Amino acid sequence: MNNNINLEEYIANLCDKARDASYNLAQSSLTERNNALGMLADKLQNSDIINKIIEKNDIDVSHAKENGITDAMVDRLKLDEKRIKNIAGALMKIIALPDPLGKGDNWIRPNGLSIRRISVPLGVVGMIYESRPNVTVDAAALCIKSGNSVVLRGGKEAINSNLILADIIRQSVKEAGLDSDCVQIIDNITRESANVLMKQHGKIDVLIPRGNAPLINNVRENSRIPVIETGVGVCHIYVDYNADFDMAANIVVRSKARASVCNAVETVLISRGIYKEFLPVMKKRLDELNTEIRGCEKTLEILKDAVPATEEDYYTEYLDFILAVKVVADVHEAIAHINKYNTKHSEAIITNDMKNAKEFQSKVDAVAVYVNTSTRFTDGEEFGFGAEIGISTSKLHARGPVGLNELTTVKYLIDGDGQVR
Amino acid sequence: MNNNINLEEYIANLCDKARDASYNLAQSSLTERNNALGMLADKLQNSDIINKIIEKNDIDVSHAKENGITDAMVDRLKLDEKRIKNIAGALMKIIALPDPLGKGDNWIRPNGLSIRRISVPLGVVGMIYESRPNVTVDAAALCIKSGNSVVLRGGKEAINSNLILADIIRQSVKEAGLDSDCVQIIDNITRESANVLMKQHGKIDVLIPRGNAPLINNVRENSRIPVIETGVGVCHIYVDYNADFDMAANIVVRSKARASVCNAVETVLISRGIYKEFLPVMKKRLDELNTEIRGCEKTLEILKDAVPATEEDYYTEYLDFILAVKVVADVHEAIAHINKYNTKHSEAIITNDMKNAKEFQSKVDAVAVYVNTSTRFTDGEEFGFGAEIGISTSKLHARGPVGLNELTTVKYLIDGDGQVR
Repeated sequence: MNNNINLEEYIANLCDKARDASYNLAQSSLTERNNALGMLADKLQNSDIINKIIEKNDIDVSHAKENGITDAMVDRLKLDEKRIKNIAGALMKIIALPDPLGKGDNWIRPNGLSIRRISVPLGVVGMIYESRPNVTVDAAALCIKSGNSVVLRGGKEAINSNLILADIIRQSVKEAGLDSDCVQIIDNITRESANVLMKQHGKIDVLIPRGNAPLINNVRENSRIPVIETGVGVCHIYVDYNADFDMAANIVVRSKARASVCNAVETVLISRGIYKEFLPVMKKRLDELNTEIRGCEKTLEILKDAVPATEEDYYTEYLDFILAVKVVADVHEAIAHINKYNTKHSEAIITNDMKNAKEFQSKVDAVAVYVNTSTRFTDGEEFGFGAEIGISTSKLHARGPVGLNELTTVKYLIDGDGQVR
Repeated sequence: MNNNINLEEYIANLCDKARDASYNLAQSSLTERNNALGMLADKLQNSDIINKIIEKNDIDVSHAKENGITDAMVDRLKLDEKRIKNIAGALMKIIALPDPLGKGDNWIRPNGLSIRRISVPLGVVGMIYESRPNVTVDAAALCIKSGNSVVLRGGKEAINSNLILADIIRQSVKEAGLDSDCVQIIDNITRESANVLMKQHGKIDVLIPRGNAPLINNVRENSRIPVIETGVGVCHIYVDYNADFDMAANIVVRSKARASVCNAVETVLISRGIYKEFLPVMKKRLDELNTEIRGCEKTLEILKDAVPATEEDYYTEYLDFILAVKVVADVHEAIAHINKYNTKHSEAIITNDMKNAKEFQSKVDAVAVYVNTSTRFTDGEEFGFGAEIGISTSKLHARGPVGLNELTTVKYLIDGDGQVR
């Protein structure tokens, strides 16, 4: 009880600090905000600092291995020199992006009112996320660049990595002459701390959960703050009756190769007309990745070693080297299956039938619908937008990559000389 | 208990029908959607139909008067021939607006991927609203035009008006050859029916509450569906030290003249330098409206008949002919007061001091910040956008007037020829 009161005070206090700093940040210049990111990029290329980060990350990775975490999860957690330098490289790209603030348009109404519509920061962004520690830097950098404070609540498994990264970020912000309180990190990683954070209505303007389905669902059920849902991807590839086999098998394999990301493929649907011929081709390529196949009855006819798929499998985001495979009658059954089981993220059809391609793109309900290419392209960089804080599967505000522009809102400034209505 | 199960089935069933119809509507042409609205406009100009609507509205108005509702509330509820024809006129304006669907841009990535970003309907919109029955038509028309189904849950006091209007809308949709199930109305007006509606995650894509503060707060606290908050406006006018008295008094009076709307002024702040001279000028004009003044101590010095204002008054959206008045030191105190008590809706400063005007617009946190004009201009038509479903005070998705474009989301269609990552 006493602990809970302390937790509530602790988090409310962090949020108040972030709120105060957000006013400072909203008035800052692009140069100041970019300077903060530049100092951060410098530090992340300094070998002493890199070594300190790796030291802390090693602790997290050892704990994770002791706890018997999957290889895919360890891959998400791991930082090495190359990955840290990649984070610094991502910062340089964010610096190069134009200022998302103060943009807009203006017009004059027939009664002489002058209306300006300008972009302003959201205010305070709350992030609830899981193992990947690069999210700490990416999220903070995008928030700083867009004039927002951020309250970070990462996963327990990455806590040592996240704390040192947050320290380095705050130091960089301070050295740039801005209020370092714009970056707050919660070091109490319990279910309670997430729940308390979700109740900070009026202190936090938007909550962005990034992680697996139970995390996202928990935030949606319990948040009193508007939420941008990100990250859960039960993505499908449908291989149509006249697909190019080599292309299809290559797209499937490359869409699974980084199994731990949200736009990786989880289920492959195959047209009844070709499954007998296509399955062995696909299997041969998938063996490169040592992937377990969970198949429907028809799949098991051809791939004798496959595990039988359950209804549950079709709903599952494995984030691992497991692939569900189902044979369907045609494009209509594929669309129906996808709209039932998908998380509205990224879906692909491999076909040479123009009509089927068009119908698939029109009727599949998802953020991104692909023809003859991989689901893995749903990504801010790949779309040409620059860095993103996550892929939103929400329909409101931001659908798809959430970048700098999606971290702003608008304000109307209206000038008159006595007009009334 | 048994009743509750029935209520849940009843509402889930309405939502399912709306969902099914939304697929039909999403594939419809602009001509079909406009035809539905044109038929509706015709009906609302037919004197037999107008008389039937007024007959039902009379029942609602009598009930309201029996229940001792305020004059301002009766004004919101009342429909007469002129108001019904105005609704029809609003429909003609919606018909004239461009199609919000299928718009977007497209580009080609260096790897050859062709990306199209197009606007698509949100799906199913849930509306929870209060007395004004014109909202039934406005909301349904904007949803139909933007390819969305709508589930309407209006107020008990307007139920007879809303039911007949919904009937007329559904008939018009049907006559245009579209699925009339795209418009659903809940006839069980209880707190439970609102609560059940708020739990329809996956069936309803966005909930738009429109009404007073308790209604909005209830939706925010209990909804499991993303919400666009609309309508609560504790709006201020700050009269600065060198304001033009006639202009200021006129703007205050005209900002109160339609007391029942969300962009009406609720509190006037007056600079300490001028309150003794300005208050009598303002009072004389306000007497035209028979407005009760609730003032701070300094206000009471000058206006002996005014009621003392309590802390509670400054938080209150009266929606009636009551005005809170407070004397403040300067623009800084005015900004601080507004940011503490406002609902982030519409705020105005009356001044000839350019620096104060700029500071007010920059630091006041609200959708619309006005200089030398009335808060009443926060309105889709007045901004030049056309009809709106409400004024959003949310920071996400839609801030300000929520019109056709805000009732859409985006979808990415990506075409490749074997690209992988």
